[in-house]
Amino acid sequence: SLLGQKRLQNMLDFVNKAKWDAWKSLGSVSQEEARQQYVDLISSLVGTEAPAVAAQPTGSTKGFQTLLVSTEDNITTIRLNRPEKKNAITVEMYNELIEALDLAGKDDSVITVITGSGDYYCSGNDLNNFTKIPEGGVEKLAKESGELLRRYVKVYIDFPKPLIGVINGPAVGVSVTLLGLFDVVYATEKATFHTPFSQLGQSPEGCSSYLFPKIMGAAKASEMLLFNKKLTAAQACEVGLVTEVFPESSFQSEVWTRLKAYAKLPRNSLALSKQLIRVVEKEKLHAVNDAEVERLVERWLSDECMQAIMSFFQAKSKL
Amino acid sequence: SLLGQKRLQNMLDFVNKAKWDAWKSLGSVSQEEARQQYVDLISSLVGTEAPAVAAQPTGSTKGFQTLLVSTEDNITTIRLNRPEKKNAITVEMYNELIEALDLAGKDDSVITVITGSGDYYCSGNDLNNFTKIPEGGVEKLAKESGELLRRYVKVYIDFPKPLIGVINGPAVGVSVTLLGLFDVVYATEKATFHTPFSQLGQSPEGCSSYLFPKIMGAAKASEMLLFNKKLTAAQACEVGLVTEVFPESSFQSEVWTRLKAYAKLPRNSLALSKQLIRVVEKEKLHAVNDAEVERLVERWLSDECMQAIMSFFQAKSKL
Amino acid sequence: SLLGQKRLQNMLDFVNKAKWDAWKSLGSVSQEEARQQYVDLISSLVGTEAPAVAAQPTGSTKGFQTLLVSTEDNITTIRLNRPEKKNAITVEMYNELIEALDLAGKDDSVITVITGSGDYYCSGNDLNNFTKIPEGGVEKLAKESGELLRRYVKVYIDFPKPLIGVINGPAVGVSVTLLGLFDVVYATEKATFHTPFSQLGQSPEGCSSYLFPKIMGAAKASEMLLFNKKLTAAQACEVGLVTEVFPESSFQSEVWTRLKAYAKLPRNSLALSKQLIRVVEKEKLHAVNDAEVERLVERWLSDECMQAIMSFFQAKSKL
Repeated sequence: SLLGQKRLQNMLDFVNKAKWDAWKSLGSVSQEEARQQYVDLISSLVGTEAPAVAAQPTGSTKGFQTLLVSTEDNITTIRLNRPEKKNAITVEMYNELIEALDLAGKDDSVITVITGSGDYYCSGNDLNNFTKIPEGGVEKLAKESGELLRRYVKVYIDFPKPLIGVINGPAVGVSVTLLGLFDVVYATEKATFHTPFSQLGQSPEGCSSYLFPKIMGAAKASEMLLFNKKLTAAQACEVGLVTEVFPESSFQSEVWTRLKAYAKLPRNSLALSKQLIRVVEKEKLHAVNDAEVERLVERWLSDECMQAIMSFFQAKSKL
Repeated sequence: SLLGQKRLQNMLDFVNKAKWDAWKSLGSVSQEEARQQYVDLISSLVGTEAPAVAAQPTGSTKGFQTLLVSTEDNITTIRLNRPEKKNAITVEMYNELIEALDLAGKDDSVITVITGSGDYYCSGNDLNNFTKIPEGGVEKLAKESGELLRRYVKVYIDFPKPLIGVINGPAVGVSVTLLGLFDVVYATEKATFHTPFSQLGQSPEGCSSYLFPKIMGAAKASEMLLFNKKLTAAQACEVGLVTEVFPESSFQSEVWTRLKAYAKLPRNSLALSKQLIRVVEKEKLHAVNDAEVERLVERWLSDECMQAIMSFFQAKSKL
Repeated sequence: SLLGQKRLQNMLDFVNKAKWDAWKSLGSVSQEEARQQYVDLISSLVGTEAPAVAAQPTGSTKGFQTLLVSTEDNITTIRLNRPEKKNAITVEMYNELIEALDLAGKDDSVITVITGSGDYYCSGNDLNNFTKIPEGGVEKLAKESGELLRRYVKVYIDFPKPLIGVINGPAVGVSVTLLGLFDVVYATEKATFHTPFSQLGQSPEGCSSYLFPKIMGAAKASEMLLFNKKLTAAQACEVGLVTEVFPESSFQSEVWTRLKAYAKLPRNSLALSKQLIRVVEKEKLHAVNDAEVERLVERWLSDECMQAIMSFFQAKSKL
C-alpha cells in the first residue's frame, strides 16, 4: 500500500541516518517513537493477521486455536491449521505445538504425525511475531523469542515415540530445520524445502547446524543453510532429509495406508527402538539447540539482521 | 502340520488365559510345563534342524562345523555354510564366527571376506536358538543370548584389518545391521536387506542404532530399523549401506578380481589406515553395543515381544 | 631416461641387499651415500622442477610465488598457480597457502574461494618434497613434513568464513581429502577425485579418516581411502563430497555468477552460521588431524612405504 511505502521510507530514512547502534542509545522518547515506527512498518507490510480458523475438535481432540489434533487408529495427528497464512507459526501456535506434542508423547498412540492444512506444509516463523515489542524493548523480545524457540525444539529432541512428517506442500525455515529430528518424512512431489536464513541476516536452528551436515554432508548442507538453496522434494530425498516422495495424486492415500500399518506394530518396541536410536545424540542435541538459540538472539539484535529484514520487506513492497 | 497347529492353539490358549506376567509367577511345576509347551511350539513350527553340512577344510583351513574358512592370495574368506537353512546363525555358528574372525584378525592375510554359501547371504538369527531353554529359565536364556551377541558384535568393532562383505543373496536381521562395521560391501543385484525388528517386538543391534542414521540419515534409517522396510540392493547402495552392486551373472568374477588386487596392496598401510578410520568411534561403538544388547534382553523378556513372536509363527503356520 | 633407469637399478639393488632397517644402522659415510642415491633416484624420475610461473599480483594482491591471490566483489580467490606441474603442492606452496588462508580469514571479503590454474585442480603432494633430505636425515624430514601438514590442515579446520572449492579439473591426494573441510564444492564434469594412499604405503589425512565416513558412510569412504578408488565428478556429487557438478562449457560462468550472489549476503550472518556449523566438531577435528599426521610420519619412516614409493617410480620409469 502507499501508506506502507511511506512508512517504510520513513523507517529506512531513520535507519540510514541513525543506525541501529545509535537507535539503541537514543533517549526513551525517541526509542518509543522508533519502536512504533518499526512496528508500523512490519505490520503494514505483513498485513493485519486474519483470525485463525477455529479448530474443529472431534473424538479425543483437545481444543486448540491454531491446530487440529486428533487420535485415531493409534495415530495422533497434529495438523497446522492456519491455511490462510500458509501455516506460519505464531507465538500462540508455538505454545500450542509444545502442548500438543507433550500430550501426544504421553497418550497411548503408537506414532505421532505432523502435517499441514491447505496447500502449504508451513511457511516458517510468522514475522508478525517480531512486531509485538514488549515493555522491555527489542532485547526482551529477542530473549523471549529465543526461549520460546529453545523450548519448542527441545520437545522434538525429547519426543519419546516415532514422529512422522507428512509434508503436504512447501516448507520454510524452522519447519524444514526440524525435519532432522523427525523419524520418517514423507513428502508430496509438490513440496519444497527452503531455509533462507542468511538472506534475513539470521542463522540456522532446529539442530540443523549439527544434523544437516550429518545427514547430507557439509557440502550440501551449507548450500541450504548458508546460501539459501531451495530443494525440490526429489532433491531433499536424494540427500536424505526426506524418506520418500509420492505423486501428489496418490500422496495422502499411499502415506496413510503405510502409517496405519505402522501404528499396528508393537508399541513399546517402536518407542524403545526410537529412543535407542536418539539417546546417543540427545545430550549433544540439547547443547546444539542452546548454542543455536544464543547465536540467533545475538543475530536478532544485530544491525545486520535488522537491515536485512528491512531490505527484504522493501523488496517485497516493490513487487 | 496338524500337530503343530494343535500345539500352537494350546500355546495361544495358554497365553490368552494366563498372560506372560502370570506365567512368570506360576509355581515351578506349571513353569516347567509352560516352558515345555513353548519349546514344543517353536520346535514344531521351525522344524527339526537338519545337521549342518560338514565343513570341507582345504589348505590352511581350520575345521568348523558351520563355516568354511580358507586363506588364499592374502585373503582369508569366511563362508557361512548352512545353505539348507539360509545360513541362519545358530549359537554354534555365533561361536565359530567369533573364533574365525579372531583368527583372521591375527593371521597374515591382508583382507578378510565374509560371504554365504548357496542362494542366501544370511537369514539372521536362527529362531531355534530360543527354544533350548536352560535350567535358569527364559531370563537366563535371554541374558546368555545377549552376552553372546555382545561378544559377537565386539569382534567386528575391534577387527584390525579391512573387512569386506560379499553379499551373495538376501540378508536379514543381524547380518544386515553389522554391515555398518564392514569396510567395503559388494552385493549382487539379487541381494535384499531386511531388519524386521519391531515386527517381532525386538530392537536394533549390531551398532545399527548409531551407524545407520550416520550412514543414511535418520529419515531413511528409521524406515528400516523401526518400520521393517526391506531394501533392494540398488536402494541399499543409494543410501550408502552397500559400496557397489553387480549383475548376478558377473558378480563373483568381478568382485574377486577386485579383492585379489586389494590384497596385493601394502598390508600395514591398509590395516593402519582402517584402524585410523575406526578408532575415533571405537569407544562410542562399544557403548552403543552394550546399550543395544541391554535393551534387547529387556525386549526378549517382555510380554510384547513374546506375543509378537507367537503372532509371527501363527501367521506362518496358517500359510 | 637410461641414466634414471641405471640409478633406479642401483637403488633397488641397494635396497634389496641392505634393506631399510640395515640402511638406518649404516655408518655415516654409507648413509650419506645412500641418501644421495635416493635423492638422485627420485630427482631423475620426477624431473628437475621448472621454476614456477611468477605470480601476477593485481589489485590488493600480495605477491606469492606459487599462488595468485586477489580480492574482488567481496570474494578472495586463492588460485594454485603451478599449472605446468598440475599444481602439485611444494613446501613453498604449503607455506604460502597457510599464509594466504590466514590473510583471507582476516580480510573483509565475505567468502573465500580456492581453485587451480590450468587443466588440473591439484595433483596433491609434490613428491620432490621428499628428495631434499635435511641434515637430520629422513626422520627429521618426516617430522618436518608432518608438522607442515598439521599446520596446513589446521588452517582449514579453523577457517572462520565460508570456504568454497571451485574444482576445475582432476584433484589428487590432500587436495581431495581436505574437501570435507570446505563449505561448498563446485566441480566441472572433467574433475576426478583420487586418494591413492595405500598404493604408496601411506595413510589418509586432511581429516578425511573422520569426515569421509561421516559424509558418505564407511562403505564408500573405505573404497576411496583404503582401496584407491578414483571417483568421477558425478560420483563425488552422489556421495556428497561435491555440492554440484557443471558442464565444462558453462562451469566458470555458472559458478562465478552464484559466488557473486553469495558474496552479497550479510557477511556476519554467513561467518557466524558457518562457525556454528563447524564448532561442534572443531575439537574432534584437531584431534583427528594430530592422529592422522602422527600415523603418516610413522608410515613415511616405514620399510613398507619406502618400498611402495620405489615400486611406484619403478613402474613409472618402465612406461
